[in-house]
Amino acid sequence: MSLEDHFKTVVIAGVGLIGGSLGMSLRQSGTAGRVIGVGRNPGRLQKALALGAVDSFSLDLADASRDADLILLCSPVSQIIRDIPVVLASAGPDAVVADAGSVKAQIVAAAMDDPRFIGCHPMAGSNLTGVEAAFPNLFKLATWVLTPVKSTSERAFRVAEETGRRLGAVVCAMSPADHDRAVALISHLPHLISSSLMRICAAEALRSPKLPLLSAGSFADMTRVANSSPELWRDICLSNRDAILSAIDSYIDELKYARNIIESESPEEIVRFFDEAASEKRDWKKSI
Amino acid sequence: MSLEDHFKTVVIAGVGLIGGSLGMSLRQSGTAGRVIGVGRNPGRLQKALALGAVDSFSLDLADASRDADLILLCSPVSQIIRDIPVVLASAGPDAVVADAGSVKAQIVAAAMDDPRFIGCHPMAGSNLTGVEAAFPNLFKLATWVLTPVKSTSERAFRVAEETGRRLGAVVCAMSPADHDRAVALISHLPHLISSSLMRICAAEALRSPKLPLLSAGSFADMTRVANSSPELWRDICLSNRDAILSAIDSYIDELKYARNIIESESPEEIVRFFDEAASEKRDWKKSI
Repeated sequence: MSLEDHFKTVVIAGVGLIGGSLGMSLRQSGTAGRVIGVGRNPGRLQKALALGAVDSFSLDLADASRDADLILLCSPVSQIIRDIPVVLASAGPDAVVADAGSVKAQIVAAAMDDPRFIGCHPMAGSNLTGVEAAFPNLFKLATWVLTPVKSTSERAFRVAEETGRRLGAVVCAMSPADHDRAVALISHLPHLISSSLMRICAAEALRSPKLPLLSAGSFADMTRVANSSPELWRDICLSNRDAILSAIDSYIDELKYARNIIESESPEEIVRFFDEAASEKRDWKKSI
Repeated sequence: MSLEDHFKTVVIAGVGLIGGSLGMSLRQSGTAGRVIGVGRNPGRLQKALALGAVDSFSLDLADASRDADLILLCSPVSQIIRDIPVVLASAGPDAVVADAGSVKAQIVAAAMDDPRFIGCHPMAGSNLTGVEAAFPNLFKLATWVLTPVKSTSERAFRVAEETGRRLGAVVCAMSPADHDRAVALISHLPHLISSSLMRICAAEALRSPKLPLLSAGSFADMTRVANSSPELWRDICLSNRDAILSAIDSYIDELKYARNIIESESPEEIVRFFDEAASEKRDWKKSI
């Protein structure tokens, strides 16, 4: 079976922002022969059809997966974990199954070393959610992380890699554990930091009502992502618990170090603390 | 002496971004009769003159202050503290002396209850520094905090208030201690948070070189202010030490709370944590 055959019938389970954008992009670029959307809400699937994200839709994931060449699971993490055994039981031996969940170890474990499965995390998003917010260029220049394990077939890897490439994304591979540790630090921790800052400042504003008047650009930037979906972030915290706990611990250690050099009034250490951070910020994207 | 008389001869000590913008605004609006810039670097003062921030300049603060109606101290905090006794010893009995430092308790204490002095913090800024970055509208709609104490004369308060108004700023008054606590939480802590996040992620990137590829908008926002002047932030940390230490402590407590509800896998508490932060973020500026 050639690589091209894998894009004849593509099933997308969960046609929200990510799934809808995948469908639009695969259809508009002519990459997919046909795209079947699967979900539990006919109204939402109808909307995905009207917006051009899918060619048709079904409420039955097992049935839709039967003749699919590529199945992309784009629901929330807990739903992906429930869907994986259903899809793998139904899909043919040459099918490739990938997901778009934002944590990987739990999801990859649910595939129980099936060679047809590959973990994938398209790192694109928006403050908006739902298929109404979907657009075909969402993945252009986005990072497309693949998390193959020993059991993953080379074909599954190549199909998932090629899917990312055709969407204009930058593909990179790492282990599920490395991925989860990385996103805990680079994405999950920043959200917790932002919400925590918002919470203590709001508590202080109750005692000191002029506080919001004194807030400027740095505060606005640092609390922007505090306005995120609580349910989404509950799921992320629970599904990437261990890596997040360890990221919080490293972070508290660093804050304690900062506290310590300020308390002991050590001017050289304080300058070095800010100076290193400033040069790390300037060089951050240069090293890629 | 009428209020208007106070704007005849204005001395600005420290003609950088803030002092330069004050000079430009006071001159261009016709508020000040003449503006004299004072500093220690003739080259920089010459530049301020060429850019229209001052009408003339002097290297002698005591001498320039002698016949001034209003003296605005816009140097770094440590320099302001050194300049205050010099200016108060030289200025006339009807002069008003204000500063533009970003912390207030130490500065107000240096004025030793002189009724002519009033603490002031124009909350405007930019990533850029120096008179080259100055522009007359810097203070438009910015918050202009005044920190009068018991000894402050009503005239000093009214002159500083009117200066802020003429620059288009929003004037508010609070005690020096309340100001310092507020900026520790709303400005100094966010900078420490940002630099700390940058530092632990840069350390992890040494072990995991693909990490920068996985960073997106939230990380970019949260680390924007990590690229700030180390010397400026050393001075701020040392001059607002106690309030900053207490802000770090509150913040670590909040992070530990977040850690705790994630570790114990408490879905309702986690939703409430993010939900409260999200609604606090949406309502932040509404309460003013």
